[in-house]
Amino acid sequence: MVSKVKRLLIGKPMKSTAIEDEKLGKLKALAILSSDALSSVAYGTEQILIVLMTLGFAALWYSIPISIAVLGLLTILVLSFRQTIFSYPQGGGAYIVAKDNLGVMSGLTAGGSLLVDYILTVAVSSSAGTDAITSAFPQLHEHRVLISLIMIVFLTLMNLRGVTESASVLALPVYMFVVAIFVLIICGTINYFLGDVQAAAPQFGATISNISLFLLLKAFSSGCSALTGVEAVSNAIPNFRHPAEKNAAATLIMMGAILGAMFIGISLLAYWYGIMPTEKETVVSQIAGATFGRGLIYYIIQGVTALILFLAANTAYSAFPLLAFMLAKDKFMPHMFMVRGDRLGFSNGIIMLGVLSALLIVAFHGDTENLIPLYAVGVFIPFTLSQLGMMVRWIKLKPSGWVVKLLINTIGMLTTLSITLIFIITKFSQVWMIFIFLPLVMRFFSRIHRHYQNTADELRINIATDKPAIKGSTMVIPIAGITRVVMYTISYAKSLTDNVVAVYVGFDEEEIRKLEAKWEEWDPGVRLIVLRSRYRSVMRPLMRFIDTVEWKTAETDHITILIPQFITKHWWQNILHNQTSLLIRAVLFKEKDIVIATVPYHLNR
Amino acid sequence: MVSKVKRLLIGKPMKSTAIEDEKLGKLKALAILSSDALSSVAYGTEQILIVLMTLGFAALWYSIPISIAVLGLLTILVLSFRQTIFSYPQGGGAYIVAKDNLGVMSGLTAGGSLLVDYILTVAVSSSAGTDAITSAFPQLHEHRVLISLIMIVFLTLMNLRGVTESASVLALPVYMFVVAIFVLIICGTINYFLGDVQAAAPQFGATISNISLFLLLKAFSSGCSALTGVEAVSNAIPNFRHPAEKNAAATLIMMGAILGAMFIGISLLAYWYGIMPTEKETVVSQIAGATFGRGLIYYIIQGVTALILFLAANTAYSAFPLLAFMLAKDKFMPHMFMVRGDRLGFSNGIIMLGVLSALLIVAFHGDTENLIPLYAVGVFIPFTLSQLGMMVRWIKLKPSGWVVKLLINTIGMLTTLSITLIFIITKFSQVWMIFIFLPLVMRFFSRIHRHYQNTADELRINIATDKPAIKGSTMVIPIAGITRVVMYTISYAKSLTDNVVAVYVGFDEEEIRKLEAKWEEWDPGVRLIVLRSRYRSVMRPLMRFIDTVEWKTAETDHITILIPQFITKHWWQNILHNQTSLLIRAVLFKEKDIVIATVPYHLNR
Repeated sequence: MVSKVKRLLIGKPMKSTAIEDEKLGKLKALAILSSDALSSVAYGTEQILIVLMTLGFAALWYSIPISIAVLGLLTILVLSFRQTIFSYPQGGGAYIVAKDNLGVMSGLTAGGSLLVDYILTVAVSSSAGTDAITSAFPQLHEHRVLISLIMIVFLTLMNLRGVTESASVLALPVYMFVVAIFVLIICGTINYFLGDVQAAAPQFGATISNISLFLLLKAFSSGCSALTGVEAVSNAIPNFRHPAEKNAAATLIMMGAILGAMFIGISLLAYWYGIMPTEKETVVSQIAGATFGRGLIYYIIQGVTALILFLAANTAYSAFPLLAFMLAKDKFMPHMFMVRGDRLGFSNGIIMLGVLSALLIVAFHGDTENLIPLYAVGVFIPFTLSQLGMMVRWIKLKPSGWVVKLLINTIGMLTTLSITLIFIITKFSQVWMIFIFLPLVMRFFSRIHRHYQNTADELRINIATDKPAIKGSTMVIPIAGITRVVMYTISYAKSLTDNVVAVYVGFDEEEIRKLEAKWEEWDPGVRLIVLRSRYRSVMRPLMRFIDTVEWKTAETDHITILIPQFITKHWWQNILHNQTSLLIRAVLFKEKDIVIATVPYHLNR
Repeated sequence: MVSKVKRLLIGKPMKSTAIEDEKLGKLKALAILSSDALSSVAYGTEQILIVLMTLGFAALWYSIPISIAVLGLLTILVLSFRQTIFSYPQGGGAYIVAKDNLGVMSGLTAGGSLLVDYILTVAVSSSAGTDAITSAFPQLHEHRVLISLIMIVFLTLMNLRGVTESASVLALPVYMFVVAIFVLIICGTINYFLGDVQAAAPQFGATISNISLFLLLKAFSSGCSALTGVEAVSNAIPNFRHPAEKNAAATLIMMGAILGAMFIGISLLAYWYGIMPTEKETVVSQIAGATFGRGLIYYIIQGVTALILFLAANTAYSAFPLLAFMLAKDKFMPHMFMVRGDRLGFSNGIIMLGVLSALLIVAFHGDTENLIPLYAVGVFIPFTLSQLGMMVRWIKLKPSGWVVKLLINTIGMLTTLSITLIFIITKFSQVWMIFIFLPLVMRFFSRIHRHYQNTADELRINIATDKPAIKGSTMVIPIAGITRVVMYTISYAKSLTDNVVAVYVGFDEEEIRKLEAKWEEWDPGVRLIVLRSRYRSVMRPLMRFIDTVEWKTAETDHITILIPQFITKHWWQNILHNQTSLLIRAVLFKEKDIVIATVPYHLNR
């Protein structure tokens, strides 16, 4: 039943050898890996305008130079990541690059902060997508949490189905979004130059009396939130089709170009149209409304924007499981993240990401805007560490042309470091949490690592000297009467060793006498030992007896407890049997180093 | 930790031989067994008045003849049950008497309806007690459910502590209640005859135009709810000290006399004082207020009334577990109701009663008044069956003086039968549920019985001919690598038989080659079989392999799967190990008839 539902939702299991077919070409990769980055266009400009609006309408012209600065930063990041791709063709996420060049702790800092970040990505993107929907249909506002959760469930299922299949479904909305935004930018620009625009742009270069560097930096850092997601390509190189690094690099450049063009286009339109950010309507919605009126095209633009925001979450679905896999391989995360599921995806990572982000959505009642700065810091810390790692690498390896490469990564590192610092300084009230949970995650990693190390040490044997040794054997069978199950269990024990003893825990002298007499009459060839329990406890006398057996024979014998156990035909019948056997098993298992063999007896009726 | 809390709440375990000391003397028995019956005084008269009030104030005089009729019925019941006590000194509940004389189905009807009834008793009594409290302190009204639940928890704990100890705690309030009601009756009567009463009684014998037999019968049956609980003594004879039946009979007579006097006294006072039932205040509260004013004595009376109502529930706590024990002994209820707990009580019955009645309280939000008729029918059905059973017994056995005895039981049977019918006719809307759940409970009994019968048939052996037989042995060890645990497991297996095989499920050719090479180098003296899994499932190839082994050797050999299993030091570490062993165990256990031996390995760090 469960497995049928699973088949229906996720599809049939796939052979391990099918993994090569699951790899991505450039165009599909662009769809899968760029939705996070591209979707930032839907809110990047707006974030800048919101900060500038605190200074009044006239200050909005600053959005243009700030947008250009963001564009510059984007160029630097793309160039830097391109270098990483070629240096780490097996996948150059910040975790790998930092661990490789700066040491394990830096790697874990980058990895931990990305891991948390991917969860935030899913939560933030799905609630942003929901906002786009409820902007168009305000009556859905009260169902926001539900809509977000449905999207998360949908994405989780798609990703459990596998990489290629989800790409096919998810590629279309990404292309539609790109087309829609370019149509908007082109038509909006034409409209503007034809003079069909009513609202006047704020005067460019006007002096604003109360402007401060702090505020400009804050606006800039807000705009930088549009750059989150750029790292996705370099993390996911193993998912690319051969030649992986070339395909990845090309995809990265494509993505950078599209993102840059769309971002600056939206910023220009917003400036030209004199658009002010409001609580009720997004900037893109205002531009689209001003350009096309609230007609069909407007709703199409809003629709694909909502879609792309949902899909932004999908980037995290490819990145999180892969990162968790790498951390698990290095023994910093539980082994279960290394297991490929029926459809070859890392199911446990996918499911965990879905569950945790759904919990965030519920905890914040779908209002995840306040998480955006936290999310941005969580991206820029690993960016910085990754660039720093690349710098160290160039200095160590000194390949041809290393000076230029070093220069690019140095600029990249300095920029991302500055942005991290700007974030922390200008938005401390929203990002302080990272200083709590990052150490927690690190501690979590290190405890897991220590446990795996210890376990490996304990379990390791020297195959030259450590060989299995043969010992004697003693078997103990707790019984409650003379039944077919007991007979079967004694047959089993006697087939293995002559050292078998049956134990009966009795509460009542009368019953004990009866059993002893019956046992003698039956004469199964096994000694019966009766333990008297004055407190009606089965466990205590039994444990004491086993202690004695251990004390007498543990040196020379393996001790086995044979537990006869009913298996009823219907689940409800279990309640009809006291199943003392389960209790005995649980207690012995926890306390004793002896083998517990369950001898099953399947009831037929 | 858990066991310490248990000790604190319930007390130290007691030896089985201490059971004789736990038995009850007459006075303690009166306290424990009569609280249900005596507490009916708190609402019996009121139930009559409520029905009469629908005809207007003048009709209230009918309460006097109706009360006398109830008193007559009480006398009949006491005499009948006295006969039962002497006929069934080992405990003559309706279940036993009906089963013994009328057959199993009648016995189960009586038993099932009592079992459900005891649950209703606890729910109804604890909410009635809560009502008495909230009459005095209206601000507690919103916490009614909580107060009722606290009382149920308290009663459950007291009963888990054991019979005598709870008697000591619970006896005092019963005696206080009896004293308080008698003081009220005496002072109220004196007041009335001194003429200190303002309100006038309705004229006795006045003709009421719209009176009907139906209404009078309804009022009478409502008054009969005061008789519930009378059966408690005859059920609980095994709890009495020697000579049990004499003590029980004396207790029954005492209880009947006290109950009759209190009931008629309260009815008279209510009539003399011209008291009308209202929603807000109970009749007893009105009488007490009129007699003493709202002073200290009034609050004492309300307080002990509340207490006795809570304690009424306690009668069910001694009756339910005993009845469940008897049903379990006859294999109609799960065996677990036969187990005596640490303190010699039938803990499972006590706990189940507490849980189910608490659920009722929560489901009805503490408004359980509508359950009272249902509860009364649930008592009178077994009453009738029990009397009928006694009649059959007298006719069969014909002891000396049997005609008088038969006569008494016949009158008893006819009266209780009439009351049952009156209840069903006049209050069908409130009692129809019994026609649904009584068949359900019966079906539940019969399915349990059939299961136990079938199991016993399957497990029974002929000790003359069925003897343990020795077979060969094959052991299979699933491994995931070469570790200390595997070495230990192989040592164990080789100590028992030469027929040992290790099985490795591999996903990856590279890893399979490595393991095979290492195995050869290690050379543990056991053959390694490698199963290839193209779908990364461990279970499927393993199950297929075991199928093959079974097919080859099941005739001649016992097959054992040895499962090495880690036991981690801290619970959280469990998540770090995939514990495929648990999965293997669960699947094999359900599907195969082979022995599963878990070889534990306790991790030290």
